Amino acid sequence: MERVVVALGGNALLRRGADDTFEELYRAARTAAERIAEIAAEGWEVVVTHGNGPQVGRILIQQEAAAKTVSPMPLDVCGAESQGLIGYLLQVTIGDVFFERGMERPVATVLTLTRVRPQDPAFRKPSKFIGPFYTAAQAHRLEEQRHWVMKEDPHGGWRRVVPSPRPYSIVETPIVKRLVADGVIVIAGGGGGVPVIEKGPRLIGKEGVVDKDLAAAILAAEVEASTLLILTDVQKVQRGFGTLYPDAIDRMTADEAADLLKRGEFGAGSMGPKVQAAIDFLEAGGTRVMIGDLDEAPAVLRGEAGTEIVPS
Amino acid sequence: MERVVVALGGNALLRRGADDTFEELYRAARTAAERIAEIAAEGWEVVVTHGNGPQVGRILIQQEAAAKTVSPMPLDVCGAESQGLIGYLLQVTIGDVFFERGMERPVATVLTLTRVRPQDPAFRKPSKFIGPFYTAAQAHRLEEQRHWVMKEDPHGGWRRVVPSPRPYSIVETPIVKRLVADGVIVIAGGGGGVPVIEKGPRLIGKEGVVDKDLAAAILAAEVEASTLLILTDVQKVQRGFGTLYPDAIDRMTADEAADLLKRGEFGAGSMGPKVQAAIDFLEAGGTRVMIGDLDEAPAVLRGEAGTEIVPS
Repeated sequence: MERVVVALGGNALLRRGADDTFEELYRAARTAAERIAEIAAEGWEVVVTHGNGPQVGRILIQQEAAAKTVSPMPLDVCGAESQGLIGYLLQVTIGDVFFERGMERPVATVLTLTRVRPQDPAFRKPSKFIGPFYTAAQAHRLEEQRHWVMKEDPHGGWRRVVPSPRPYSIVETPIVKRLVADGVIVIAGGGGGVPVIEKGPRLIGKEGVVDKDLAAAILAAEVEASTLLILTDVQKVQRGFGTLYPDAIDRMTADEAADLLKRGEFGAGSMGPKVQAAIDFLEAGGTRVMIGDLDEAPAVLRGEAGTEIVPS
Repeated sequence: MERVVVALGGNALLRRGADDTFEELYRAARTAAERIAEIAAEGWEVVVTHGNGPQVGRILIQQEAAAKTVSPMPLDVCGAESQGLIGYLLQVTIGDVFFERGMERPVATVLTLTRVRPQDPAFRKPSKFIGPFYTAAQAHRLEEQRHWVMKEDPHGGWRRVVPSPRPYSIVETPIVKRLVADGVIVIAGGGGGVPVIEKGPRLIGKEGVVDKDLAAAILAAEVEASTLLILTDVQKVQRGFGTLYPDAIDRMTADEAADLLKRGEFGAGSMGPKVQAAIDFLEAGGTRVMIGDLDEAPAVLRGEAGTEIVPS
């Protein structure tokens, strides 16, 4: 059986404009679960990774709201919490869909840690906005009291920024590989995994956010998936992002992708890291990357929709 | 290799009177991790289960404090969050201790769901206190607005009560068994697992709390462990609980344990469910149960400390 790592975008679990309720989250998870079941039914071994931005944001807001009663936990612990939360919803909904369709495939959520380098420049220059918005005065107080780095958000207000170091290895790869080879649908690498550095023999959790697509690329290479499927809410990768006439791309090589990426054709926001993840995976020996819309996931995986990126 | 399921009491992760800080939680996890490493070093295959009472309590307090900004999630989702939180801390600290001692054993946290019966009488009579304390007026409002069942806590104030149904099967047993047979130290069944009922082919999460020792007994039987090791903060099971002259028990059979349990010799609090779990495991084919102090865990497992319960 061929093996695929499916990276679900943050939007897969919290649709733009959707309410922040359990019902909404469950509905979104259920939709993603249906697409995953369709992929599994076509004969794929599947590892599912997912973002955690909105959910870890919720947890941070909750922590701060109760900070006088219960001590807030560091961000790495919150990330692990969010993996439990999202993994649970995906696991239950995937299991439901399988049972309804008469498919028998076990589903498991494996808590995931992601190795990053202590000397990663991101640690000296935190840039990833997380958690609630504050006034300037509150921000200054938090800088002093909590030693956070605060920055003005382009959307207004002040927020905490944390490092977003590049991942280079997934701690749980042997576990995930063993399970997926046994036919288990494995949910792993949630939110990019909790970033850890190796200090001598120890793994130390770091307060930071690993890009989930970059982590998915590493995981895909390490579990020897042939294909990395990156699902988002646009149908194809477009060049000329932000211009009047963006141009949808059906197929490109890793070299072409790297060239366009360098020229800023994909924007620095969400598509840039996805294309970078594609390049990373192909350089590490992957066969093909498909990027496309969650709603069309099985067609994207078959190459009938979305953008295909192949080795040069 | 012989296989053991180690059930860590809630106190293993939050010592009585300890501060509710990350540092304290990490220290407690580290202590538990050292005992688990000693057990693994003696040649055991190990599955670790743990309580989640204090941690899920924290999450509930945080949810309510921020309820005006972000919608609270149901208790099953909070339970899954707590499995991520505690699993992460145990996994990192167990990994640390192993590396320091030159041991190579992978560690994995598997999110766990526990099957309970929809007709369990506990669903008609919620009795397990959870989350923050409220005034009577607040309690009445929550009953109306959230459809919670509220009860006066013997410690004062009003709290939410939820069902504590009996577990009968662990959804992830095949995964846990596969991993532990491969030498992985598996953290599973956290907080007793998220309770789910089977409705036709679907698994539906329920708001409730599964006793973690009862769930550990099921998991131990299902993964074919020879031994269930229940760790708490007392050295031995005592009969005559609450009397002037309690009597420490070195060894008893399942029948003797059932008899003493029926006569209320262990108190209804924390030791009762542990002895019930021991009986359940031995009835399901287990070889032996040891109950004792976390600090002496390896000696308890060897039978040199604690209370041993054997088949009749």
